[in-house]
Amino acid sequence: MTYRAPIKDMLFVMNELAGLEAVSQLPGFEEATPETAEAVLDEAAKFNEQVVAPLNRAGDLDPSSWKDGVVTTTPGFKEAFRQFGEGGWQGVLHPQEFGGQGLPKLIATACNEMLNTANLSFALCPLLTDGAIEALLTAGSDAQKATFLPKLISGEWTGTMNLTEPQAGSDLAAVRTRAEPQGDGTYKVFGTKIFITYGEHDMAQNIVHLVLARTPDAPEGVKGISLFIVPKFLVNDDGSTGARNDVHCVSIEHKLGIKASPTAVLQFGDHGGAIGTLVGEENRGLEYMFIMMNSARFSVGMQGIAVSERAYQQAVAYARERVQSRPVDGSAREAVTIIHHPDVKRMLMTMRALTEGARAVAYVAAAASDAAHQHPDEAVRRQSQAFYEFMVPVVKGWSTELSIDVTSLGVQVHGGMGFIEETGAAQHYRDARILPIYEGTTAIQANDLVGRKTVRDGGAVARAICAQIAETEAALGRHGGAAFTAVQAQLARGRAALEAVVEFVVANAKSDPNAVFAGSVPYLKLCGIVFSGWQFGRAMLAADAKRADDPAFHEAKIATAHFFAEHILSQASGLRDAVVSGGAPVNALSAEQF
Amino acid sequence: MTYRAPIKDMLFVMNELAGLEAVSQLPGFEEATPETAEAVLDEAAKFNEQVVAPLNRAGDLDPSSWKDGVVTTTPGFKEAFRQFGEGGWQGVLHPQEFGGQGLPKLIATACNEMLNTANLSFALCPLLTDGAIEALLTAGSDAQKATFLPKLISGEWTGTMNLTEPQAGSDLAAVRTRAEPQGDGTYKVFGTKIFITYGEHDMAQNIVHLVLARTPDAPEGVKGISLFIVPKFLVNDDGSTGARNDVHCVSIEHKLGIKASPTAVLQFGDHGGAIGTLVGEENRGLEYMFIMMNSARFSVGMQGIAVSERAYQQAVAYARERVQSRPVDGSAREAVTIIHHPDVKRMLMTMRALTEGARAVAYVAAAASDAAHQHPDEAVRRQSQAFYEFMVPVVKGWSTELSIDVTSLGVQVHGGMGFIEETGAAQHYRDARILPIYEGTTAIQANDLVGRKTVRDGGAVARAICAQIAETEAALGRHGGAAFTAVQAQLARGRAALEAVVEFVVANAKSDPNAVFAGSVPYLKLCGIVFSGWQFGRAMLAADAKRADDPAFHEAKIATAHFFAEHILSQASGLRDAVVSGGAPVNALSAEQF
Repeated sequence: MTYRAPIKDMLFVMNELAGLEAVSQLPGFEEATPETAEAVLDEAAKFNEQVVAPLNRAGDLDPSSWKDGVVTTTPGFKEAFRQFGEGGWQGVLHPQEFGGQGLPKLIATACNEMLNTANLSFALCPLLTDGAIEALLTAGSDAQKATFLPKLISGEWTGTMNLTEPQAGSDLAAVRTRAEPQGDGTYKVFGTKIFITYGEHDMAQNIVHLVLARTPDAPEGVKGISLFIVPKFLVNDDGSTGARNDVHCVSIEHKLGIKASPTAVLQFGDHGGAIGTLVGEENRGLEYMFIMMNSARFSVGMQGIAVSERAYQQAVAYARERVQSRPVDGSAREAVTIIHHPDVKRMLMTMRALTEGARAVAYVAAAASDAAHQHPDEAVRRQSQAFYEFMVPVVKGWSTELSIDVTSLGVQVHGGMGFIEETGAAQHYRDARILPIYEGTTAIQANDLVGRKTVRDGGAVARAICAQIAETEAALGRHGGAAFTAVQAQLARGRAALEAVVEFVVANAKSDPNAVFAGSVPYLKLCGIVFSGWQFGRAMLAADAKRADDPAFHEAKIATAHFFAEHILSQASGLRDAVVSGGAPVNALSAEQF
Repeated sequence: MTYRAPIKDMLFVMNELAGLEAVSQLPGFEEATPETAEAVLDEAAKFNEQVVAPLNRAGDLDPSSWKDGVVTTTPGFKEAFRQFGEGGWQGVLHPQEFGGQGLPKLIATACNEMLNTANLSFALCPLLTDGAIEALLTAGSDAQKATFLPKLISGEWTGTMNLTEPQAGSDLAAVRTRAEPQGDGTYKVFGTKIFITYGEHDMAQNIVHLVLARTPDAPEGVKGISLFIVPKFLVNDDGSTGARNDVHCVSIEHKLGIKASPTAVLQFGDHGGAIGTLVGEENRGLEYMFIMMNSARFSVGMQGIAVSERAYQQAVAYARERVQSRPVDGSAREAVTIIHHPDVKRMLMTMRALTEGARAVAYVAAAASDAAHQHPDEAVRRQSQAFYEFMVPVVKGWSTELSIDVTSLGVQVHGGMGFIEETGAAQHYRDARILPIYEGTTAIQANDLVGRKTVRDGGAVARAICAQIAETEAALGRHGGAAFTAVQAQLARGRAALEAVVEFVVANAKSDPNAVFAGSVPYLKLCGIVFSGWQFGRAMLAADAKRADDPAFHEAKIATAHFFAEHILSQASGLRDAVVSGGAPVNALSAEQF
């Protein structure tokens, strides 16, 4: 077994930190009891451990390949995806009306984590399909929903997001793909899209491309972008697939990692025009695309957590097995397994603490999203939505940045063997490297955190979160004991650092934007570690209360919280200095001085 | 041009921080004037930029390959290595008596940096040969020196270090290769060695393997290891090469990076025994090997700096060219090159500051090594040697750890293009990953720093360095001005953090070794950033004094120092907490609890 789902930790976070019980009391989620959640997680674990995880290394060795416009995926992927669809896994989150299970995002998030830990490359296909489903649910017409949603949710068809063009990466204002109305309600789409994940493959009967393009009279910039459905095969009125559409995969990329996931260059309209239909209203494409992106950004954050978990499990397994050197404390005269050496423990604890902390932040955010959608009280919905939206760039940015460090440590634990590809540790290090880039780089997330999430409300949501953190500090103080007061002290310092940064950002964003945006990524990282430290504070209180149930598990949680505080949360003041005092030297050099 | 040697920064560091003038006044180095240094660096730059650097990408695409025991290197490597030898570049550091140039380590270090920046994989062959030369200079017999040194120094032959075996990686006590005396002064060597860099290749007429092995009556553990010369081809009395020796390359590794550098599995004695001769005395092999390793460890530290420089130059070039998005300060209505965006500047400044800081620390250490060898005053020699030895694990550990971060940022600056192998940014990220592993992992360096370098003298050298840092703080204070006092403040905090850690390590190493060694890597990183910050403090004072000579260069140096202090040196207190308060939770979990 190369992967074992960490169900115990997942359920601990869901129950003790994210409030699964409360989520299951929301209207519409009555069936999502803790018992149901556990059953769903058990099934997901079985499928992902047994079917999906074993294909991860195969995907690296025998990636997707392109020939004459046809992409062939890694042997085994097609069959696994069939099982994925039939098992209902694409539909966990989506409405029962269209064939989904209608479960809370909290439960879906745990399922997604497992799928991604099992196989990052494989999981990308459902991840993008989820985004397409979300966009159609929000902005699609009834006919579009009826035509596309059941097939997407069943896994018979898959979805893509077509944003990027050679000259338009982070900056969608530069999109040039054009859509010409044909007078019959359809459009002809012309243009080139790059970096299209699963833009072409052999795992489904049809591929539903959601494409950003401009109509002839559209205004310039992001206000002139519309969203179109351009399916690979046109769909007949009875729902069956018809003629091949004029969208073709001209090549796929040769990448550092996630090699099994085909990254396509798509050519629209080279043979007369690709037929598309408008989603929602003209020129509102960016808004709809953000629906997909917000869903995808959260999911990519989960990918960071997922690959970190995989690297951690592999490193632990190796450290338990590899015998090398006697213990530094002289407790044995023979060489021992390296898991007994303090620096190996430090590395494993770092991997573990970063991963568990990010998981807790993400699951708590997922529960807030559920409340934002389903809570009967509008004030609670609004508050929950604001909390969730604040967390999205943090979950995306922080969980993916840390995945670089965690997978790098995974290699390091293996020593020289980590550098040999056969070992598999290096694959995680390569795979993870895309995560802080796609669906918006860390800088894009950080700009969102500064602009839309902090400055726009004058720091109100950020301050409200800090007030919640202070409550956890107080609870840790009331509890007492060495580990608890140590975490309290680091959390208080971390929260104070965050407050200082929020005030700096709010005060200077207008007057000195260069200085503020120079600190946007350190601000995002500070949020990541303080929010993780906060959840660890809550976790150790909950673990202490439940200690007797399972002492080894709960004591490990307390020790991991303590480790996180001293080794990671302790970095908060350095990040504060980087933001508050470090803006000027970032901007001091001219382009020529570099 | 894919690489341009940063001669201006190298000379600034050599002249202003490392005291090249003083080095050139040491007995034996009279010819090594600043003018000579500049001429040597200019020649080195020309050769490495024009001949070696263009082969870097080729080595990744068309790595060394193995067939029937024969290793063929990347096309172009053999010819470049011939030019390297003929140009005298293998001998920069080595005695004129054996054909070298006898220049100071300070100058050789700058040359080595260029070679490694040009091509990490190519540079490994000379790097290992340097180690073999050092070991023979120290422990070889006159006959061995006469036979092997001129050929190694001329580049006609190359050298290897054979330490690792499948069961003996970091722990050389577990070495099992055996050497049986034949009664004629030679030995027959039997065993398997793995991870042997350039253990087999086609770039030289002969390969001089230096091999750790045990004689029949040797004691167990590291006190029973001897060092042998086992050449690929036996050497006749007239110095010509004779019969093929019984050492064979049975495979090379399939690696994450540095793919052009063949990593060999060598089988000794499968066909009757490989003929070897003893170096120095029996059972003192580890001691001699440490000579090679100390040379190699410093050089691998330089590799970290070198690949960081390469990644930085590539990222700057891309950021100057790629147009995307309007500036956040509204200073332009059109999209600009991304080097104008604050977060791109922050990433480039981080890459630049880490690289320049590590370069300064390494060059200052190299100058101390020169004084340790050549200074007429024994007290100065001893003091310089102690300083150099303290710096070796820091140069090795810190410069290689930061190379992971710098090359990762290099990918990030490229956005999605960074993940595409054709761009070349990903190669540096893959190549760098071995650096914190080979020639002693970061943990091994950190244990050396704690044990031999700090605890053994009760922290005396560490405290003496802190006292020197305090002098720089005072000079910054006397100078005054915003950037200088900001750096002074961060440096004072960093130095205080380091003092606290040194006292903790000295006080607890015996009584609580697990807690101290749990913090050994954070201690090493703290040394790396505080020493870099110290050199930046000295650098900004020197740059200010020279400002008028070249304002753009010297003002960039001052800004980079300021950046380093606020963004990187500011992490010192977090690292202090990790060491001083973080030991207990590292060791809290049992092997089963992970």
